[in-house]
Amino acid sequence: MWDLPKTVHLMEVGPRDGLQIEPTILTTDQKLELLDAIAEAGVREIEAGSFVNPKAVPQMADTEAVFRRLRRHPGVTYRALWLNPRGLDRAIAVGTVDLDGRLQLTASEAFVKRNTNRSIDETFADVPDWIARYRAAGVAPDCLGMMAAFGCNFEGDVPVDRVVSLVARAEAALLAAGSALKQVALADTMGWATPDRIRRMIGTMRDRWPDLSIKLHLHDTRGTAMANAMAALAMGVREFDGSIGGLGGCPFAGHKGAAGNICTEDLAYMCEEMGIATGIDLPALVRAAQMAESMLGHPVPGKVMKGGLLPRRLAA
Amino acid sequence: MWDLPKTVHLMEVGPRDGLQIEPTILTTDQKLELLDAIAEAGVREIEAGSFVNPKAVPQMADTEAVFRRLRRHPGVTYRALWLNPRGLDRAIAVGTVDLDGRLQLTASEAFVKRNTNRSIDETFADVPDWIARYRAAGVAPDCLGMMAAFGCNFEGDVPVDRVVSLVARAEAALLAAGSALKQVALADTMGWATPDRIRRMIGTMRDRWPDLSIKLHLHDTRGTAMANAMAALAMGVREFDGSIGGLGGCPFAGHKGAAGNICTEDLAYMCEEMGIATGIDLPALVRAAQMAESMLGHPVPGKVMKGGLLPRRLAA
Repeated sequence: MWDLPKTVHLMEVGPRDGLQIEPTILTTDQKLELLDAIAEAGVREIEAGSFVNPKAVPQMADTEAVFRRLRRHPGVTYRALWLNPRGLDRAIAVGTVDLDGRLQLTASEAFVKRNTNRSIDETFADVPDWIARYRAAGVAPDCLGMMAAFGCNFEGDVPVDRVVSLVARAEAALLAAGSALKQVALADTMGWATPDRIRRMIGTMRDRWPDLSIKLHLHDTRGTAMANAMAALAMGVREFDGSIGGLGGCPFAGHKGAAGNICTEDLAYMCEEMGIATGIDLPALVRAAQMAESMLGHPVPGKVMKGGLLPRRLAA
Repeated sequence: MWDLPKTVHLMEVGPRDGLQIEPTILTTDQKLELLDAIAEAGVREIEAGSFVNPKAVPQMADTEAVFRRLRRHPGVTYRALWLNPRGLDRAIAVGTVDLDGRLQLTASEAFVKRNTNRSIDETFADVPDWIARYRAAGVAPDCLGMMAAFGCNFEGDVPVDRVVSLVARAEAALLAAGSALKQVALADTMGWATPDRIRRMIGTMRDRWPDLSIKLHLHDTRGTAMANAMAALAMGVREFDGSIGGLGGCPFAGHKGAAGNICTEDLAYMCEEMGIATGIDLPALVRAAQMAESMLGHPVPGKVMKGGLLPRRLAA
């Protein structure tokens, strides 16, 4: 199958997923400068921080300040991450977060236990509460994030059928509460996906939910992220997360086993060169990646920012 | 189309294409140690050096010594590169090079002028001489290398039709001399290929030459190498060059515009995880990449060597 979409939508997650593991903690001013540069490059959705425990993730401790001082660019949606009701309450309280009604699940029992000391079943027990909270905040609960959707370092392969049954269970809970599931974001949290797995997963999901939007959150832990994105693009997938410079676990900074996100500008470059419109000003996004690299003070894995855009694109 | 091959053949070019741009020049002993490690990992074809001007490429100045002292592993073919008759004469003289009968062309007029101060036509004028020299050396002239087959930093896009007409012209010259063209190695020398270009190129070549073996030599200049390999694998392509650790122009060492080769162990990992046999012992190849990184003294871009093989593979 080779059914490339005409356009793609890329969400920039570098300011959250990218910065959260960096030993250098950026100042709020630096983060705001970076957010400006990303928005000026034409990115239309940015994850700007997370409302998690500041002791566990000190890099995100100023997320309230970031959102309070946010210089909003027209047409840009500013997202944040939360993992428990307290985090959502903080996001609501700050007032400038573009809330989405996301249920967060994990496809690996070992990983969810390790991360939250709860089982998958216990996660499901909270779903009605999440639905109620989102509604109280004026947000439709209609999307689902699925971590470790392709495999888990602590458990092994995650079968496609398990993901499908978890999605079906979440959909049933939403339907029972009078909501509909519109999007599933499949996260390859630990870099287990291959193009073949992507193909099987998306094919199976499409067979069951032809109208469901599928988004991919890919990590380049084992070098397959761009090939995985390609396999998804060839099936018409139009939504991806990415991180400028490939931030998100820099193997060159000695974060053992950490996994960089797929590099936003590399993915955008590949799309644009294949005639898939991203809405992104590539030279401007490369500059934003270079700014991040300079702020962090170590080389980042992005390739286009080092190898250079094609001369004809620079001249255009 | 999704017609994955059952097996692939990977040629390791790190000891040549990888090392030739490194500021640290490895000793002959180090190169021999690296060649041993690569062979012990199950790689069956290795480009071990080049017979070029030692003033221009001092990293390869000891290629005679490498081949003279080579510890040949059973079943391994040891290749070298030459670009003029003098280089071929050196390769023949050393006596231990596994010669191939390769005609080397370039698809970009600007690039061939820049590299050799000759035109594409002038390159063709030498073909009868090359054929005669290979025959005198007891080698069948039956393969063709095509540099800059997808685009050129100094000229721009290289149209598929131009590559096809150059291949046809080379084939005619071989046929006129009583030889047949068996393989074309398409080199994305400056990292212009995208999966879409790969698809169009291979599709067009296959239409015209259904029985011709197509090999890809990919560079990851702009982050697309693994996606390009994936597009080719999906069309059943079975032969690739690669470089351990992704050596070959390390963007982290400040080689402006230089382009790393596709990383052999990352490509081998992706193939094996999709059920495509490589014959390679992945943990052993990762160790060879780590050895190269340690010898060169700077981080290399390979991902699997940092992110780690999947636990189940390590346990197996």
